[in-house]
Amino acid sequence: MRKGVMRPGHVQIRVLDIEEAVKHYVDLIGLIETDRDEQGRVYLKGWTEVDKYSVVLREADEPGMDFMGFKCVDEATIDSLAEDVRKLGIEVKEIPAGDLKDCGRRMQFVAPTGHTFELYATKEQTGKWGVSNVNPEAWPRDLKGMKATRFDHCLLYGDDLEGNLELFETLGFGLAEQVLDPDNNRVALFLTASMKAHDVAFIKHAEKGKFHHASFYLDTWENVLRAADLISMTNTSLDIGPTRHGLTHGQTIYFFDPSGNRNEVFCGGDYYYPDHEPTTWKAEDLGKAIFYHDRQLNERFLSVLT
Amino acid sequence: MRKGVMRPGHVQIRVLDIEEAVKHYVDLIGLIETDRDEQGRVYLKGWTEVDKYSVVLREADEPGMDFMGFKCVDEATIDSLAEDVRKLGIEVKEIPAGDLKDCGRRMQFVAPTGHTFELYATKEQTGKWGVSNVNPEAWPRDLKGMKATRFDHCLLYGDDLEGNLELFETLGFGLAEQVLDPDNNRVALFLTASMKAHDVAFIKHAEKGKFHHASFYLDTWENVLRAADLISMTNTSLDIGPTRHGLTHGQTIYFFDPSGNRNEVFCGGDYYYPDHEPTTWKAEDLGKAIFYHDRQLNERFLSVLT
Amino acid sequence: MRKGVMRPGHVQIRVLDIEEAVKHYVDLIGLIETDRDEQGRVYLKGWTEVDKYSVVLREADEPGMDFMGFKCVDEATIDSLAEDVRKLGIEVKEIPAGDLKDCGRRMQFVAPTGHTFELYATKEQTGKWGVSNVNPEAWPRDLKGMKATRFDHCLLYGDDLEGNLELFETLGFGLAEQVLDPDNNRVALFLTASMKAHDVAFIKHAEKGKFHHASFYLDTWENVLRAADLISMTNTSLDIGPTRHGLTHGQTIYFFDPSGNRNEVFCGGDYYYPDHEPTTWKAEDLGKAIFYHDRQLNERFLSVLT
Amino acid sequence: MRKGVMRPGHVQIRVLDIEEAVKHYVDLIGLIETDRDEQGRVYLKGWTEVDKYSVVLREADEPGMDFMGFKCVDEATIDSLAEDVRKLGIEVKEIPAGDLKDCGRRMQFVAPTGHTFELYATKEQTGKWGVSNVNPEAWPRDLKGMKATRFDHCLLYGDDLEGNLELFETLGFGLAEQVLDPDNNRVALFLTASMKAHDVAFIKHAEKGKFHHASFYLDTWENVLRAADLISMTNTSLDIGPTRHGLTHGQTIYFFDPSGNRNEVFCGGDYYYPDHEPTTWKAEDLGKAIFYHDRQLNERFLSVLT
Repeated sequence: MRKGVMRPGHVQIRVLDIEEAVKHYVDLIGLIETDRDEQGRVYLKGWTEVDKYSVVLREADEPGMDFMGFKCVDEATIDSLAEDVRKLGIEVKEIPAGDLKDCGRRMQFVAPTGHTFELYATKEQTGKWGVSNVNPEAWPRDLKGMKATRFDHCLLYGDDLEGNLELFETLGFGLAEQVLDPDNNRVALFLTASMKAHDVAFIKHAEKGKFHHASFYLDTWENVLRAADLISMTNTSLDIGPTRHGLTHGQTIYFFDPSGNRNEVFCGGDYYYPDHEPTTWKAEDLGKAIFYHDRQLNERFLSVLT
Repeated sequence: MRKGVMRPGHVQIRVLDIEEAVKHYVDLIGLIETDRDEQGRVYLKGWTEVDKYSVVLREADEPGMDFMGFKCVDEATIDSLAEDVRKLGIEVKEIPAGDLKDCGRRMQFVAPTGHTFELYATKEQTGKWGVSNVNPEAWPRDLKGMKATRFDHCLLYGDDLEGNLELFETLGFGLAEQVLDPDNNRVALFLTASMKAHDVAFIKHAEKGKFHHASFYLDTWENVLRAADLISMTNTSLDIGPTRHGLTHGQTIYFFDPSGNRNEVFCGGDYYYPDHEPTTWKAEDLGKAIFYHDRQLNERFLSVLT
Repeated sequence: MRKGVMRPGHVQIRVLDIEEAVKHYVDLIGLIETDRDEQGRVYLKGWTEVDKYSVVLREADEPGMDFMGFKCVDEATIDSLAEDVRKLGIEVKEIPAGDLKDCGRRMQFVAPTGHTFELYATKEQTGKWGVSNVNPEAWPRDLKGMKATRFDHCLLYGDDLEGNLELFETLGFGLAEQVLDPDNNRVALFLTASMKAHDVAFIKHAEKGKFHHASFYLDTWENVLRAADLISMTNTSLDIGPTRHGLTHGQTIYFFDPSGNRNEVFCGGDYYYPDHEPTTWKAEDLGKAIFYHDRQLNERFLSVLT
Repeated sequence: MRKGVMRPGHVQIRVLDIEEAVKHYVDLIGLIETDRDEQGRVYLKGWTEVDKYSVVLREADEPGMDFMGFKCVDEATIDSLAEDVRKLGIEVKEIPAGDLKDCGRRMQFVAPTGHTFELYATKEQTGKWGVSNVNPEAWPRDLKGMKATRFDHCLLYGDDLEGNLELFETLGFGLAEQVLDPDNNRVALFLTASMKAHDVAFIKHAEKGKFHHASFYLDTWENVLRAADLISMTNTSLDIGPTRHGLTHGQTIYFFDPSGNRNEVFCGGDYYYPDHEPTTWKAEDLGKAIFYHDRQLNERFLSVLT
């Protein structure tokens, strides 16, 4: 939060069939539907999130990610950060308040890897779902499915990693972890605005703008097991897991929504402070870096969406 | 981290018998001894901490806390924050580098509640203990006892809570949680510099400068159980637990070191961002706020050290 | 199961208000109501139990336990065991099939400690609740509250422990654990018909026929935490926990139903085979034997119902 | 235990290099070496086992299982069960006491699937390792690696499953689970002498006498994670996991010892009583039956040793 970016505030995901997607994100992952808009977009959140929503589903002809937004501490911050981004030669456009329901104006730009990001400071706060802000109980009794607590981060594939590193360092992010090839070129970046192991991550890829997964946080390794059980019970397409990542050491499952978007649910993971040296993984050990137990990539890991 | 304070960096604790204390903090809690100095002080850390130490044990005639230090992002920050503290009418003295071994200069002051705090920016970094910074394994195999991962926070008792709130907000801390009496006076403050549920907390008490506990973080609720088992196996004095706090919702045990200093080990707990409204507990429900399951304070909870 | 007794098959508990009790056992503990009879008794089970019910609630003026029944492998076994019991000088009466709904005839007798037990071999089997017997899923998605998996055992207080030991050894039970006073008199018996740490347990007490608790099994220590959370959320009266027992080493919570009957939910615990020497606890360490972490009895532990 | 067979008491495993194997079973799996004999065999046990050993390692030119032994309640039982086995037309030979160190005579025979089993009633009892039988602590502090608690079962491949079912039912085992092909032929048997989900299991295979794995019990799903971590840290060959089985619903990892013998560590799993109908899995869903999350067999699952 060194320059006022707090956290991943939302991600807009394209889905092929909106009702089927809502069923997946609500009944299986356990997000809460909080609103819809006249475009037909559906707004969702994890129960621990104080803002009104963190996931926006949009029906479209192709799956993938439209954009990812970071919430900043105040309106002045997004103006000054937008200026900093422009100084990098990146065009920033201001989207007026209300374009996303109950959200203030957003400063939107395309990163060197081809992904669209945005900064905003205002969104309706509805508080944690199902618990009061006075004498709050430990958790709400009516959660569904995996009981995901929050939207946590995205992993994205693209070409210009050094460009993205410069951009995110400009925004005050720290480089928590990296993967280096034998020539010490970075082939993966794990970036964080605060203490989390990652708020956004990038893996080197020949094409721009690819979407690997959106990730949701679970409380415990036991909940990761129950999530895997639910994936099986609902005949949902599993990618891999339960397992642990080497990078961040989080405990994880990858699976797919009905449109083919990859989701992750995970728990645990290392913490970061600005005085931490980046943790480095060697590209020749990428298998262990990604899937700590299997120590090899499955073929699917390399598949990404536009 | 809005004004450059990152985290609780160290606490100096007074103990009656240094070797007995080292055995407790190393063999039972699982901290690692990293050095000693010519004054006979012993330096310890949790295995995930990148700095050389976070706990300093000093042999003395009475138990208690000497001071608690916060690590800041750079030297300029501690100068400017010291200036901000002075503007509150609080005297700040600079302790030269080397007074604590391998630690830079520290800006030290006494808070309105009578506790001594300090800010510093430089300490030798030795990296996480037992794992490499390149291709790091998930955890070291040689940890002892409770396998505490880090020094996490202190809970302190004192009189002038409003004074402390002003002080810590000046330092960029957020008020994550509070307890209000029926007249809306604050009787407890849970303050955080970053995302953690608390980096330091205060409870209203007639006398100044009291020490309730120093707390260490564990990974999981299962490790809390094993910690409780070890407390019993080693015939260590238990205060309470395993249980959950209402405040922060962390899962916890309180117990005592051989000198009578209270320790906590805990896991879990809520997270905080600067746009979160403080969570409020009512003083009339303080039992549940402190011990969520028992819903009443034990008598010992009120006992504190000078 | 050496002489054909398999397991605790049911317990009939007296409650002051039947609907309030059903709410407690169903919504909080997570048992499933499977039937009622014309006397107004309510039949319940844990989801992993294959028989139709294991708990019978009967509305009465006083709380407590009416009787506890053990299921045996076949009808011939209950006749021959009844004969063995009669040889001990204990009167056995046969209760005809249908007295408990969908249950065969039961051979009922009063143990030397004054508690009523019975043996039966036939009860309608409805299979595990919520999962098929073909390709069964790992667990049903619609469980409530604590999600108790089964009725597990009772702890009872009474005077003639040696008489009970002779009785239960006659029935093929093994003495898994015992508490001995300084004169080597037994002051507690933990008895098992199979591999479980206990199917029924007795603690020495001046009066006959006292009921300490009925216990239900949970899968994990995390579920014990969530059970404790639910006790708090529902403002249920907590006795003690979460903690571990010394005896059996199970992880436990004690709490009370609305009528004042003590319940336990627990997980873990040692296993037993007939060639195991009894584990012995010394009466002078009874605090640690009962509550492994606190190492002292709370006053309530000594309170029991008629 | 209906006819006096209590449990899997030992398995003799062939290894290519005895010291390398000891290192694997002791340092990684966490078994305790308790003795060696003049043939160079090494005797090991899990810490909760009261007998002196449960695993015997024998250096040989080929890996695999020599035999698996079941402990019975007394010497008379092994004579009468041997007689029952002979009545099935199976030859039984008596191996004199002392052939396995500190073990009484063993009645040995070859099952219809070509595997060698034996019954015995006497073995030196050394008690649980690292804890006293009086006021026992919850667990010993000096356990290594995965901290396996006991040898649990074997999975074996062979041709004549119906022959084996008849044999094991003769020995008093129950059929807890089965896999049926579309013609209702059994292609897998999960057999138990007591309450455990399985004490020995068989999968249909064209050849006789194949060894799939020997399995060791862990306390919790968190220990399964830590076991997987250790497999990675020690660069041990992983087969699959952490995951859950459909059959038994246990939570598991498969990996290989340095000789190529497959090991399993697992926790959880359903329980069994003699009045339970066998749980049935359909052969067309064998993927889900074996690996509940992946819902497909990996190629390695089909590989077995002579």
